[in-house]
Amino acid sequence: MTDISRVLSRADENLPSSLDKLFELLRIQSISTDPAFKADVRKAAEWLAAYLNAMGFTATVRDTTGHPMVVAHHDGASPAAPHLLFYGHYDVQPVDPIELWQDDPFTPAIKTGDSGRKIITGRGTSDDKGQLMTFVEACRAYKETEGALPCRITILFEGEEESGSPSLKPFLEAHADELKADFALVCDTGMWDPETPAIAAALRGLVGEEIVVTAADRDLHSGMFGGAAANPIHILSKILAGLHDETGKVTLPGFYDGVEETPADIRANWDRLGATTETFLGEIGLSVPSGEKGRSVLELTWARPTAEVNGIVGGYTGEGFKTVIAAKASAKVSFRLVGKQDPAAIRESFRAYVRAKLPADCSVEFHPHGGSPAIQLPYDSALLNKAKDALSDEWPKPAVIIGMGGSIPIVGDFQKLLGMESLLVGFGLSDDRIHSPNEKYELNSFHKGIRSWVRILQALA
Amino acid sequence: MTDISRVLSRADENLPSSLDKLFELLRIQSISTDPAFKADVRKAAEWLAAYLNAMGFTATVRDTTGHPMVVAHHDGASPAAPHLLFYGHYDVQPVDPIELWQDDPFTPAIKTGDSGRKIITGRGTSDDKGQLMTFVEACRAYKETEGALPCRITILFEGEEESGSPSLKPFLEAHADELKADFALVCDTGMWDPETPAIAAALRGLVGEEIVVTAADRDLHSGMFGGAAANPIHILSKILAGLHDETGKVTLPGFYDGVEETPADIRANWDRLGATTETFLGEIGLSVPSGEKGRSVLELTWARPTAEVNGIVGGYTGEGFKTVIAAKASAKVSFRLVGKQDPAAIRESFRAYVRAKLPADCSVEFHPHGGSPAIQLPYDSALLNKAKDALSDEWPKPAVIIGMGGSIPIVGDFQKLLGMESLLVGFGLSDDRIHSPNEKYELNSFHKGIRSWVRILQALA
Repeated sequence: MTDISRVLSRADENLPSSLDKLFELLRIQSISTDPAFKADVRKAAEWLAAYLNAMGFTATVRDTTGHPMVVAHHDGASPAAPHLLFYGHYDVQPVDPIELWQDDPFTPAIKTGDSGRKIITGRGTSDDKGQLMTFVEACRAYKETEGALPCRITILFEGEEESGSPSLKPFLEAHADELKADFALVCDTGMWDPETPAIAAALRGLVGEEIVVTAADRDLHSGMFGGAAANPIHILSKILAGLHDETGKVTLPGFYDGVEETPADIRANWDRLGATTETFLGEIGLSVPSGEKGRSVLELTWARPTAEVNGIVGGYTGEGFKTVIAAKASAKVSFRLVGKQDPAAIRESFRAYVRAKLPADCSVEFHPHGGSPAIQLPYDSALLNKAKDALSDEWPKPAVIIGMGGSIPIVGDFQKLLGMESLLVGFGLSDDRIHSPNEKYELNSFHKGIRSWVRILQALA
Repeated sequence: MTDISRVLSRADENLPSSLDKLFELLRIQSISTDPAFKADVRKAAEWLAAYLNAMGFTATVRDTTGHPMVVAHHDGASPAAPHLLFYGHYDVQPVDPIELWQDDPFTPAIKTGDSGRKIITGRGTSDDKGQLMTFVEACRAYKETEGALPCRITILFEGEEESGSPSLKPFLEAHADELKADFALVCDTGMWDPETPAIAAALRGLVGEEIVVTAADRDLHSGMFGGAAANPIHILSKILAGLHDETGKVTLPGFYDGVEETPADIRANWDRLGATTETFLGEIGLSVPSGEKGRSVLELTWARPTAEVNGIVGGYTGEGFKTVIAAKASAKVSFRLVGKQDPAAIRESFRAYVRAKLPADCSVEFHPHGGSPAIQLPYDSALLNKAKDALSDEWPKPAVIIGMGGSIPIVGDFQKLLGMESLLVGFGLSDDRIHSPNEKYELNSFHKGIRSWVRILQALA
């Protein structure tokens, strides 16, 4: 058994050089969505492969039809330890509007943040170069002290996460044998607060559906036809208004099939986090939870399914007024899924519901927009609890197991294409301004993030 | 008493010269909405004033801040006969798309139409130069045979009807004494069919209101906040869906105050017109009347009030999908009014209803867009029935007293500013393509239109 304190000490001693290496990576303008930066994106991949190779990994840059992947392999000290796949992405968001940055986005620096704590500034510090480097530097601390890693590790770094990951699925499919591990570690999420690490164990799934209701075969004058001709906005309003009952529950038949109640101890932990209706909704100018009655805001957003209308349009929407009865009206509707809810069944239930609400002389078109089931690590899984204890040892407050309201596509892809669960651990904070000017990563996130991975690798080995 | 047959014969003999005069007017490109045609608009006004003066009227072109008005006066043979104000407009719609015209829009011609009947082609033939000239030529026939007109007549020709009539109200107010008559005749409407003349006795009023519902103080990610944060599109949908009950009635408290049932004999006449659900709705691709149950399509559109959503927009409406919960959603809603419904009371009732449906942490803005009461000539009025009999004498089928689903602002203005009822008689047909390429007016409409006015003037005198 590795002496963990020796590895942790090395991680501490390494911090200056770890920052040097991080800064080298941060200086590379790997903006994946802008073709002007294509060469920079590749440069970042090459930098990572070279660094991992120097550390003792077998790392290669792999071409795709878009930006390259970096794949690296390293054996573990014990064949009994699990094989882990670590995922991060080395591409970054564009920097516009550049004039809002206090410092050059690609000249990283250490400053004192608004909180009084030290921060690392620059594009990609939090999303996701700083985060992926916590894992790389944890590996380096192991290598430098033990000459080995406690587990067999495969690393996958993507260069297209900020531009829709077009190559990811084909790459996972083509290299399934090489990439398949016992489970995945993903470092692209955040802490609960600066003292409380978090593991995201539940990610809501998503079903998107656009409906277009057509009534008359042309736009009508509401004077000539109003009162006799069907109005598709009325029909659509009734459809959408009927999606929720007066208790906030979704009315679609079978909608709650596969939805399980969150264990009471987990809910109790969430309640202790102090996210009240006032704090959670107050921040966005609201005060009344709008969903299912009798549930906390965290449960509503992490562990309950929803139906939301994301967009609606029909008729005249310009300045002034036009007394038109539109021929068509449309809405984009999405469902957030939890537990074992089946995206296909929910889409079908929604479509049947819409058709049943339609007058005989009107028609509807359906346009599907994606569907993915929820991700749920069992709250009592050994993986989760080992990682939780390891994190709790490192940070001032015990780690919390949380849900996430939104999906992270990579986690679904790992599950679907490689049959792997993912452990989501990250050290970002909600004020890191990812995707915005003046992105930062706390120095403490970086330092204790490295130490956290040292502990997690030990715990999982 | 004038010998009506002599005047009618003169109108028949005059037809070639009446057409010559109409063609002169049609050749003037009096497009009021396009500043490039400002001089042409004035030219049309001057042509009319000159023609009326030559006929024995005292006619003048009156400047406004926009296009000029033409006002003409002529005494009546008998002081006991009523004083009539005749209204028409000499401006026309633009001609775009010009490439769809089979003939030059300002080179009028007589052709055989699709129906096999003779038609006059060109912009403004039906809307409204051809129509207003039916009245002028009726006056000429009187003057040429009798040397006098049977009633005192004031004529008001407007040059801004197709561009929103900005000068009309100020002009009516400034010249109320000059323009006030016993009642107005308006020739800007249509026949029921080519054999059946019509008088529009009921015009629905209108209340327009835009509502903007605001929930959170910014757009939200539906993953992070969905299920807890209020969605303004849901709120708006419930508001709009609740406007009608399951029988199609509008639910607003007090909405039907002032609504009277149409007399049974009038409804029976409407039923005999043969406008069935199939013919009325079939033309626009529909088959199921959507409004109040148990009423004919004509009653629904002519004599019943409505609530219609004319436009709705909120959230993401572009291509693809965005899982956003919008901060705002808005709708434009209009109410068609009948009988004695009070626009102000209905606006207030709607606002109170919306406010009552709003969650405590959401807000709504109201933007009023016009409000006018319905116009209703009593179905048993002498004016109406004299005109009806006169028209019935001229045409193959008896005249029908109809409603109109939409408002005609001039009629409301005459009522409000000059305290005058209006008699709406016109000879347009539904296939006249007003405002569109290849506008036409039936030669028969022009000829029998002139004869109709001869008879109506006689009947009213």
